[in-house]
Amino acid sequence: MRISELSHETNVSVASIKYYLREGLLPAGETLGARQADYGDAHITRLRLIRALVDVVGLPIAKVKRIFELIENPGDDMFSTLGKAVDSLPPYAAEGETDADDYPKARKIIEGLDWTYDARYAATGQLERSLGAIEGTGVPMSRERLEVYSRAARMVAEFDIAHLPQADADPSATIEYSVLGTALYEPILVALRRLAHQDIAARALARER
Amino acid sequence: MRISELSHETNVSVASIKYYLREGLLPAGETLGARQADYGDAHITRLRLIRALVDVVGLPIAKVKRIFELIENPGDDMFSTLGKAVDSLPPYAAEGETDADDYPKARKIIEGLDWTYDARYAATGQLERSLGAIEGTGVPMSRERLEVYSRAARMVAEFDIAHLPQADADPSATIEYSVLGTALYEPILVALRRLAHQDIAARALARER
Repeated sequence: MRISELSHETNVSVASIKYYLREGLLPAGETLGARQADYGDAHITRLRLIRALVDVVGLPIAKVKRIFELIENPGDDMFSTLGKAVDSLPPYAAEGETDADDYPKARKIIEGLDWTYDARYAATGQLERSLGAIEGTGVPMSRERLEVYSRAARMVAEFDIAHLPQADADPSATIEYSVLGTALYEPILVALRRLAHQDIAARALARER
Repeated sequence: MRISELSHETNVSVASIKYYLREGLLPAGETLGARQADYGDAHITRLRLIRALVDVVGLPIAKVKRIFELIENPGDDMFSTLGKAVDSLPPYAAEGETDADDYPKARKIIEGLDWTYDARYAATGQLERSLGAIEGTGVPMSRERLEVYSRAARMVAEFDIAHLPQADADPSATIEYSVLGTALYEPILVALRRLAHQDIAARALARER
């Protein structure tokens, strides 16, 4: 299809498509002539992916590019590549935090759960910052709450990993699933929690009346 | 204590404290003289709350102010006040989306779960946008995944609501807990999911080797 059809099909403006082509986020179409190129379904999928990462996840273009580089050149150590890809996602550590080699609050919790503690992993710093913010605000993270939250998180994570495409078959698909699954399912999980709050509160209210 | 001690105690600069006082986010201290005021523990707690909402949740000052107004004047209908308070939290709908009276993708899912569907509730629009972003990106929201995610979300939500302070006793505490619990526990839940991914993947890898 022509660039105008690609734009129509994906609701992405021709100007944006040209920008993604220039930045190397979108592979070039097949050349049809001096000023024309042909685009296929792979371009549609890639454009939807770019928009999801830019518009919904809020990634800067440089991070999207980094993720696509990892998708295209996964390297030999899939575990490490997956880590790098997921670490391209927000939230990012603030200046000066990135070189911390220990996160005491997060470490205590992660080791208490008997999970792998790794200070280099972005989620470890994320947990540390969230726990720090909660301290002294009157909504502490009790042991009991932690147990319920970590059980729920693990239940979801086990489903996610069980549905991970096999890396031997298609490493690119594995990375794509991991990045998108981490970034795009998070807002769904938190929206569902808020909706469940509302439903539970509405039911309690109905019983009282 | 003096403003300098309050600053030292909370790691918030004197300039920021003065700004919060001017904006009405922080109640004035007890006047000690023409240019001095005395601050107490309530000011420390309030300042931690402001910093958590501004720095971690990323709320603009106007939204923080709105939340404190609701905490101070909860009104008669606690259910509606709680809804308003939680709706002051991000993510916010984009321009033009806010007047939607139906979110078909979200409606299908929420009604399928037999939960209360309410288009006016911010989380409904949030679910709709996330589902829209996922479409066509190659990581669809299967029925099976939805069941696992909603079960996990509900498990967490039931714990949250069971630990809600009783509104009859202290309406302000109820609103404070709801806002903070929604905003500050979300990053913990998603960090735990990412950490669980890593732990599960590391264990699977160890078994393979």
